[in-house]
Amino acid sequence: MASSTSQSNAKRHTLSVLVENRPGVLARIAGLFARRSFNIDSLTVSPTERPEISRLTVTAHVEQEPLEQIIKQLNKLLHVLKIVELDPDTTVERELVLIKVAADVQNRSDVLELVRMFRAHVIDVNTESLTIEATGSQGKIDALMDLLQHYGVIELVRSGAVAVTRGPKALSDKVVGSEITGR
Amino acid sequence: MASSTSQSNAKRHTLSVLVENRPGVLARIAGLFARRSFNIDSLTVSPTERPEISRLTVTAHVEQEPLEQIIKQLNKLLHVLKIVELDPDTTVERELVLIKVAADVQNRSDVLELVRMFRAHVIDVNTESLTIEATGSQGKIDALMDLLQHYGVIELVRSGAVAVTRGPKALSDKVVGSEITGR
Repeated sequence: MASSTSQSNAKRHTLSVLVENRPGVLARIAGLFARRSFNIDSLTVSPTERPEISRLTVTAHVEQEPLEQIIKQLNKLLHVLKIVELDPDTTVERELVLIKVAADVQNRSDVLELVRMFRAHVIDVNTESLTIEATGSQGKIDALMDLLQHYGVIELVRSGAVAVTRGPKALSDKVVGSEITGR
Repeated sequence: MASSTSQSNAKRHTLSVLVENRPGVLARIAGLFARRSFNIDSLTVSPTERPEISRLTVTAHVEQEPLEQIIKQLNKLLHVLKIVELDPDTTVERELVLIKVAADVQNRSDVLELVRMFRAHVIDVNTESLTIEATGSQGKIDALMDLLQHYGVIELVRSGAVAVTRGPKALSDKVVGSEITGR
Protein backbone atom coordinates (compact mmCIF):
# COMPACT_ATOMS: atom_id res chain seq x y z
CA MET A 1 0.00 0.00 0.00
CA ALA A 2 1.66 3.08 -1.30
CA SER A 3 2.89 5.87 0.84
CA SER A 4 1.72 9.28 -0.26
CA THR A 5 5.27 10.63 -0.20
CA SER A 6 6.92 10.76 -3.61
CA GLN A 7 10.18 8.87 -4.02
CA SER A 8 11.83 10.11 -7.18
CA ASN A 9 14.87 7.81 -7.41
CA ALA A 10 13.08 4.79 -6.01
CA LYS A 11 13.60 1.54 -7.94
CA ARG A 12 11.39 -1.50 -7.63
CA HIS A 13 12.74 -4.11 -5.21
CA THR A 14 11.50 -7.57 -4.27
CA LEU A 15 12.09 -9.01 -0.80
CA SER A 16 11.54 -12.62 0.22
CA VAL A 17 11.09 -13.02 3.95
CA LEU A 18 10.95 -16.40 5.69
CA VAL A 19 9.15 -16.30 9.04
CA GLU A 20 7.89 -18.74 11.61
CA ASN A 21 4.25 -19.59 10.98
CA ARG A 22 2.82 -17.95 14.13
CA PRO A 23 0.15 -15.39 14.89
CA GLY A 24 1.46 -11.84 15.22
CA VAL A 25 4.46 -12.11 12.88
CA LEU A 26 2.70 -10.39 9.98
CA ALA A 27 1.45 -7.67 12.32
CA ARG A 28 4.99 -6.93 13.53
CA ILE A 29 6.33 -6.77 9.97
CA ALA A 30 3.46 -4.60 8.70
CA GLY A 31 3.86 -2.37 11.77
CA LEU A 32 7.54 -1.87 11.00
CA PHE A 33 6.72 -0.95 7.38
CA ALA A 34 4.07 1.52 8.57
CA ARG A 35 6.33 3.22 11.14
CA ARG A 36 8.97 3.81 8.48
CA SER A 37 6.38 4.81 5.81
CA PHE A 38 7.77 2.00 3.68
CA ASN A 39 6.19 2.18 0.25
CA ILE A 40 4.76 -1.36 -0.31
CA ASP A 41 3.36 -2.10 -3.77
CA SER A 42 2.25 -5.65 -3.02
CA LEU A 43 2.58 -8.28 -0.32
CA THR A 44 1.76 -11.98 -0.32
CA VAL A 45 2.09 -14.42 2.56
CA SER A 46 1.49 -18.14 2.40
CA PRO A 47 2.87 -21.40 3.85
CA THR A 48 5.98 -22.96 2.25
CA GLU A 49 7.14 -26.53 1.64
CA ARG A 50 7.75 -26.61 5.41
CA PRO A 51 4.45 -25.95 7.20
CA GLU A 52 6.19 -24.34 10.19
CA ILE A 53 7.62 -21.64 7.89
CA SER A 54 5.68 -19.01 5.96
CA ARG A 55 7.07 -16.90 3.16
CA LEU A 56 6.31 -13.26 2.47
CA THR A 57 7.04 -11.69 -0.89
CA VAL A 58 7.07 -7.90 -0.71
CA THR A 59 7.53 -5.54 -3.66
CA ALA A 60 8.23 -1.87 -3.12
CA HIS A 61 9.55 1.20 -4.90
CA VAL A 62 12.22 2.39 -2.52
CA GLU A 63 15.69 3.90 -2.56
CA GLN A 64 18.73 1.85 -1.53
CA GLU A 65 19.36 3.45 1.87
CA PRO A 66 15.85 3.11 3.37
CA LEU A 67 15.75 -0.43 1.96
CA GLU A 68 18.94 -1.39 3.80
CA GLN A 69 17.56 0.17 7.00
CA ILE A 70 14.34 -1.81 6.78
CA ILE A 71 16.20 -5.08 6.09
CA LYS A 72 18.34 -4.46 9.21
CA GLN A 73 15.26 -3.85 11.33
CA LEU A 74 13.39 -6.85 9.88
CA ASN A 75 16.36 -9.00 10.87
CA LYS A 76 15.87 -7.95 14.49
CA LEU A 77 12.18 -8.90 14.59
CA LEU A 78 11.02 -11.92 16.55
CA HIS A 79 10.30 -15.06 14.45
CA VAL A 80 11.83 -13.62 11.28
CA LEU A 81 14.20 -16.31 9.97
CA LYS A 82 15.68 -14.91 6.77
CA ILE A 83 15.42 -11.90 4.46
CA VAL A 84 16.74 -11.88 0.92
CA GLU A 85 16.56 -9.11 -1.61
CA LEU A 86 16.02 -10.90 -4.91
CA ASP A 87 18.26 -9.90 -7.83
CA PRO A 88 16.04 -9.49 -10.93
CA ASP A 89 18.80 -11.02 -13.10
CA THR A 90 18.75 -14.34 -11.23
CA THR A 91 15.09 -14.49 -10.21
CA VAL A 92 11.91 -15.77 -11.83
CA GLU A 93 9.02 -13.55 -10.81
CA ARG A 94 5.37 -14.11 -11.65
CA GLU A 95 2.03 -12.57 -10.79
CA LEU A 96 -1.54 -13.84 -11.12
CA VAL A 97 -4.36 -11.50 -12.05
CA LEU A 98 -8.12 -12.00 -12.39
CA ILE A 99 -9.73 -9.33 -14.59
CA LYS A 100 -13.47 -8.88 -15.13
CA VAL A 101 -13.89 -7.07 -18.47
CA ALA A 102 -17.05 -5.49 -19.92
CA ALA A 103 -17.57 -7.63 -23.04
CA ASP A 104 -20.91 -8.12 -24.75
CA VAL A 105 -21.70 -10.08 -27.92
CA GLN A 106 -20.32 -7.25 -30.08
CA ASN A 107 -16.80 -7.01 -28.69
CA ARG A 108 -16.37 -10.43 -27.07
CA SER A 109 -14.35 -11.83 -29.96
CA ASP A 110 -11.92 -8.89 -29.80
CA VAL A 111 -11.33 -9.56 -26.10
CA LEU A 112 -10.92 -13.29 -26.76
CA GLU A 113 -8.24 -12.47 -29.34
CA LEU A 114 -6.26 -10.66 -26.62
CA VAL A 115 -6.81 -13.58 -24.25
CA ARG A 116 -5.22 -15.94 -26.80
CA MET A 117 -2.32 -13.59 -27.54
CA PHE A 118 -1.46 -13.35 -23.84
CA ARG A 119 -1.99 -17.09 -23.25
CA ALA A 120 -4.60 -16.15 -20.67
CA HIS A 121 -7.78 -18.10 -19.87
CA VAL A 122 -11.48 -17.24 -19.60
CA ILE A 123 -12.74 -18.48 -16.24
CA ASP A 124 -16.24 -16.93 -16.20
CA VAL A 125 -18.54 -15.56 -18.88
CA ASN A 126 -22.00 -13.97 -19.06
CA THR A 127 -23.86 -11.65 -21.45
CA GLU A 128 -22.16 -8.53 -20.10
CA SER A 129 -18.67 -9.58 -19.04
CA LEU A 130 -15.77 -12.01 -19.24
CA THR A 131 -13.46 -12.87 -16.36
CA ILE A 132 -9.89 -13.59 -17.42
CA GLU A 133 -7.09 -15.35 -15.53
CA ALA A 134 -3.58 -14.37 -16.59
CA THR A 135 -0.11 -14.99 -15.20
CA GLY A 136 3.20 -13.46 -16.14
CA SER A 137 5.81 -10.91 -15.31
CA GLN A 138 4.63 -7.54 -14.04
CA GLY A 139 5.36 -6.06 -17.50
CA LYS A 140 3.17 -8.61 -19.28
CA ILE A 141 0.32 -8.15 -16.81
CA ASP A 142 0.52 -4.34 -17.14
CA ALA A 143 0.46 -4.61 -20.95
CA LEU A 144 -2.63 -6.86 -20.89
CA MET A 145 -4.39 -4.52 -18.47
CA ASP A 146 -3.64 -1.49 -20.65
CA LEU A 147 -5.22 -3.20 -23.66
CA LEU A 148 -8.27 -4.36 -21.70
CA GLN A 149 -8.88 -0.84 -20.28
CA HIS A 150 -10.17 0.01 -23.76
CA TYR A 151 -13.19 -2.29 -23.22
CA GLY A 152 -13.76 -1.38 -19.59
CA VAL A 153 -12.22 -3.16 -16.62
CA ILE A 154 -15.05 -3.85 -14.14
CA GLU A 155 -12.92 -5.48 -11.48
CA LEU A 156 -9.31 -6.44 -11.03
CA VAL A 157 -7.59 -8.61 -8.42
CA ARG A 158 -3.81 -9.02 -8.53
CA SER A 159 -2.01 -11.57 -6.39
CA GLY A 160 1.09 -9.45 -6.08
CA ALA A 161 4.44 -10.88 -7.16
CA VAL A 162 5.81 -14.25 -6.12
CA ALA A 163 9.41 -15.08 -6.94
CA VAL A 164 12.08 -17.78 -6.70
CA THR A 165 15.77 -17.68 -7.56
CA ARG A 166 16.96 -19.50 -10.66
CA GLY A 167 19.03 -22.65 -10.17
CA PRO A 168 18.67 -25.64 -7.83
CA LYS A 169 19.10 -23.91 -4.45
CA ALA A 170 16.34 -22.93 -2.03
CA LEU A 171 16.08 -19.76 0.03
CA SER A 172 15.40 -21.90 3.10
CA ASP A 173 18.52 -24.07 2.63
CA LYS A 174 20.32 -22.47 5.53
CA VAL A 175 17.33 -22.21 7.83
CA VAL A 176 17.77 -25.20 10.09
CA GLY A 177 15.25 -26.59 12.52
CA SER A 178 17.16 -25.32 15.56
CA GLU A 179 16.66 -21.71 14.49
CA ILE A 180 12.93 -22.11 14.96
CA THR A 181 12.48 -21.47 18.61
CA GLY A 182 9.82 -20.42 20.99
CA ARG A 183 11.58 -17.10 21.64
CA MET B 1 -0.01 -17.43 9.39
CA ALA B 2 -1.61 -20.11 11.43
CA SER B 3 -2.47 -19.78 15.07
CA SER B 4 -1.22 -22.62 17.18
CA THR B 5 -4.67 -23.11 18.74
CA SER B 6 -6.63 -25.94 17.16
CA GLN B 7 -10.01 -25.07 15.72
CA SER B 8 -11.86 -28.31 15.17
CA ASN B 9 -15.05 -27.11 13.45
CA ALA B 10 -13.31 -24.37 11.51
CA LYS B 11 -14.23 -24.16 7.83
CA ARG B 12 -12.19 -22.34 5.21
CA HIS B 13 -13.44 -18.81 4.51
CA THR B 14 -12.30 -16.18 2.02
CA LEU B 15 -12.61 -12.47 2.76
CA SER B 16 -12.16 -9.66 0.25
CA VAL B 17 -11.34 -6.36 1.91
CA LEU B 18 -11.20 -3.06 0.02
CA VAL B 19 -9.06 -0.44 1.72
CA GLU B 20 -7.69 2.98 0.96
CA ASN B 21 -4.19 2.73 -0.48
CA ARG B 22 -2.34 4.37 2.44
CA PRO B 23 0.55 3.44 4.71
CA GLY B 24 -0.52 1.84 7.97
CA VAL B 25 -3.74 0.19 6.80
CA LEU B 26 -2.21 -3.28 6.47
CA ALA B 27 -0.55 -2.88 9.89
CA ARG B 28 -3.91 -2.09 11.53
CA ILE B 29 -5.61 -5.07 9.86
CA ALA B 30 -2.76 -7.48 10.68
CA GLY B 31 -2.72 -6.12 14.25
CA LEU B 32 -6.43 -6.84 14.63
CA PHE B 33 -5.94 -10.41 13.35
CA ALA B 34 -3.04 -10.92 15.77
CA ARG B 35 -4.91 -9.60 18.82
CA ARG B 36 -7.79 -12.00 18.13
CA SER B 37 -5.44 -14.91 17.25
CA PHE B 38 -7.21 -15.06 13.90
CA ASN B 39 -5.99 -18.09 12.01
CA ILE B 40 -4.82 -16.70 8.61
CA ASP B 41 -3.84 -19.26 5.96
CA SER B 42 -2.87 -16.73 3.30
CA LEU B 43 -3.05 -13.02 2.60
CA THR B 44 -2.47 -11.02 -0.55
CA VAL B 45 -2.63 -7.25 -0.96
CA SER B 46 -2.25 -5.37 -4.22
CA PRO B 47 -3.67 -2.28 -6.00
CA THR B 48 -7.02 -2.58 -7.83
CA GLU B 49 -8.44 -1.07 -11.04
CA ARG B 50 -8.65 2.15 -8.99
CA PRO B 51 -5.14 3.08 -7.81
CA GLU B 52 -6.47 4.80 -4.67
CA ILE B 53 -7.97 1.49 -3.52
CA SER B 54 -6.09 -1.69 -2.57
CA ARG B 55 -7.64 -5.10 -2.19
CA LEU B 56 -6.77 -7.73 0.39
CA THR B 57 -7.75 -11.36 -0.06
CA VAL B 58 -7.54 -13.30 3.19
CA THR B 59 -8.19 -17.02 3.61
CA ALA B 60 -8.60 -18.56 7.04
CA HIS B 61 -9.91 -21.65 8.76
CA VAL B 62 -12.25 -20.19 11.32
CA GLU B 63 -15.61 -20.86 12.95
CA GLN B 64 -18.64 -18.71 12.11
CA GLU B 65 -18.81 -16.72 15.34
CA PRO B 66 -15.20 -15.46 15.52
CA LEU B 67 -15.45 -14.71 11.79
CA GLU B 68 -18.47 -12.46 12.33
CA GLN B 69 -16.68 -10.74 15.21
CA ILE B 70 -13.62 -10.00 13.11
CA ILE B 71 -15.73 -8.66 10.22
CA LYS B 72 -17.49 -6.29 12.64
CA GLN B 73 -14.16 -5.04 13.97
CA LEU B 74 -12.64 -4.70 10.50
CA ASN B 75 -15.61 -2.51 9.56
CA LYS B 76 -14.68 -0.11 12.36
CA LEU B 77 -11.06 0.29 11.23
CA LEU B 78 -9.88 3.52 9.66
CA HIS B 79 -9.57 3.47 5.84
CA VAL B 80 -11.33 0.11 5.46
CA LEU B 81 -13.98 0.65 2.77
CA LYS B 82 -15.72 -2.70 2.34
CA ILE B 83 -15.52 -6.30 3.56
CA VAL B 84 -17.21 -9.19 1.80
CA GLU B 85 -17.14 -12.85 2.71
CA LEU B 86 -17.04 -14.63 -0.63
CA ASP B 87 -19.52 -17.48 -1.16
CA PRO B 88 -17.61 -20.41 -2.74
CA ASP B 89 -20.68 -21.22 -4.90
CA THR B 90 -20.62 -17.83 -6.65
CA THR B 91 -16.88 -17.12 -6.61
CA VAL B 92 -13.98 -17.95 -8.89
CA GLU B 93 -10.86 -18.49 -6.80
CA ARG B 94 -7.36 -19.10 -8.10
CA GLU B 95 -3.87 -19.41 -6.72
CA LEU B 96 -0.44 -19.18 -8.32
CA VAL B 97 2.40 -21.41 -7.19
CA LEU B 98 6.07 -21.63 -8.16
CA ILE B 99 7.60 -25.01 -7.32
CA LYS B 100 11.27 -25.93 -7.63
CA VAL B 101 11.44 -29.73 -7.98
CA ALA B 102 14.49 -31.98 -7.80
CA ALA B 103 14.58 -33.44 -11.32
CA ASP B 104 17.67 -34.78 -13.02
CA VAL B 105 18.01 -36.36 -16.45
CA GLN B 106 16.60 -39.64 -15.12
CA ASN B 107 13.25 -38.42 -13.81
CA ARG B 108 12.78 -35.16 -15.72
CA SER B 109 10.40 -36.69 -18.25
CA ASP B 110 8.17 -38.02 -15.45
CA VAL B 111 7.95 -34.56 -13.94
CA LEU B 112 7.25 -33.02 -17.35
CA GLU B 113 4.37 -35.47 -17.78
CA LEU B 114 2.79 -34.09 -14.59
CA VAL B 115 3.43 -30.54 -15.80
CA ARG B 116 1.46 -31.27 -18.96
CA MET B 117 -1.39 -33.01 -17.11
CA PHE B 118 -1.84 -30.02 -14.81
CA ARG B 119 -1.45 -27.49 -17.66
CA ALA B 120 1.46 -26.02 -15.76
CA HIS B 121 4.61 -24.49 -17.29
CA VAL B 122 8.33 -24.93 -16.80
CA ILE B 123 9.90 -21.51 -16.15
CA ASP B 124 13.45 -22.54 -15.21
CA VAL B 125 15.52 -25.66 -15.75
CA ASN B 126 19.03 -26.88 -14.90
CA THR B 127 20.75 -30.22 -14.47
CA GLU B 128 19.39 -30.75 -10.95
CA SER B 129 15.97 -29.09 -10.89
CA LEU B 130 12.94 -27.76 -12.72
CA THR B 131 10.90 -24.75 -11.62
CA ILE B 132 7.20 -25.03 -12.42
CA GLU B 133 4.53 -22.32 -12.56
CA ALA B 134 0.99 -23.57 -11.95
CA THR B 135 -2.34 -21.85 -11.35
CA GLY B 136 -5.65 -23.28 -10.24
CA SER B 137 -8.00 -23.86 -7.38
CA GLN B 138 -6.50 -24.72 -4.02
CA GLY B 139 -7.51 -28.36 -4.59
CA LYS B 140 -5.67 -28.57 -7.90
CA ILE B 141 -2.55 -26.93 -6.48
CA ASP B 142 -2.58 -29.29 -3.47
CA ALA B 143 -2.92 -32.32 -5.78
CA LEU B 144 0.01 -31.21 -7.94
CA MET B 145 2.15 -30.58 -4.86
CA ASP B 146 1.35 -34.02 -3.45
CA LEU B 147 2.50 -35.67 -6.68
CA LEU B 148 5.68 -33.58 -6.88
CA GLN B 149 6.63 -34.38 -3.26
CA HIS B 150 7.59 -37.82 -4.57
CA TYR B 151 10.50 -36.27 -6.53
CA GLY B 152 11.52 -33.79 -3.83
CA VAL B 153 10.21 -30.23 -3.53
CA ILE B 154 13.23 -27.97 -3.08
CA GLU B 155 11.30 -24.71 -2.77
CA LEU B 156 7.71 -23.62 -2.94
CA VAL B 157 6.15 -20.14 -3.14
CA ARG B 158 2.36 -19.80 -3.14
CA SER B 159 0.67 -16.51 -3.91
CA GLY B 160 -2.26 -17.23 -1.64
CA ALA B 161 -5.78 -17.18 -3.06
CA VAL B 162 -7.22 -14.38 -5.16
CA ALA B 163 -10.94 -14.40 -5.91
CA VAL B 164 -13.72 -12.55 -7.75
CA THR B 165 -17.46 -13.10 -7.73
CA ARG B 166 -19.08 -14.62 -10.82
CA GLY B 167 -21.28 -12.35 -12.96
CA PRO B 168 -20.83 -8.78 -14.21
CA LYS B 169 -20.80 -6.89 -10.90
CA ALA B 170 -17.76 -5.57 -9.05
CA LEU B 171 -17.11 -5.62 -5.33
CA SER B 172 -16.23 -1.92 -5.51
CA ASP B 173 -19.50 -0.94 -7.24
CA LYS B 174 -20.89 0.69 -4.14
CA VAL B 175 -17.64 2.30 -2.98
CA VAL B 176 -18.01 5.85 -4.23
CA GLY B 177 -15.33 8.52 -4.33
CA SER B 178 -16.84 10.44 -1.43
CA GLU B 179 -16.26 7.52 0.93
CA ILE B 180 -12.52 7.94 0.47
CA THR B 181 -11.68 10.61 2.96
CA GLY B 182 -8.71 11.90 4.84
CA ARG B 183 -10.17 10.65 8.14
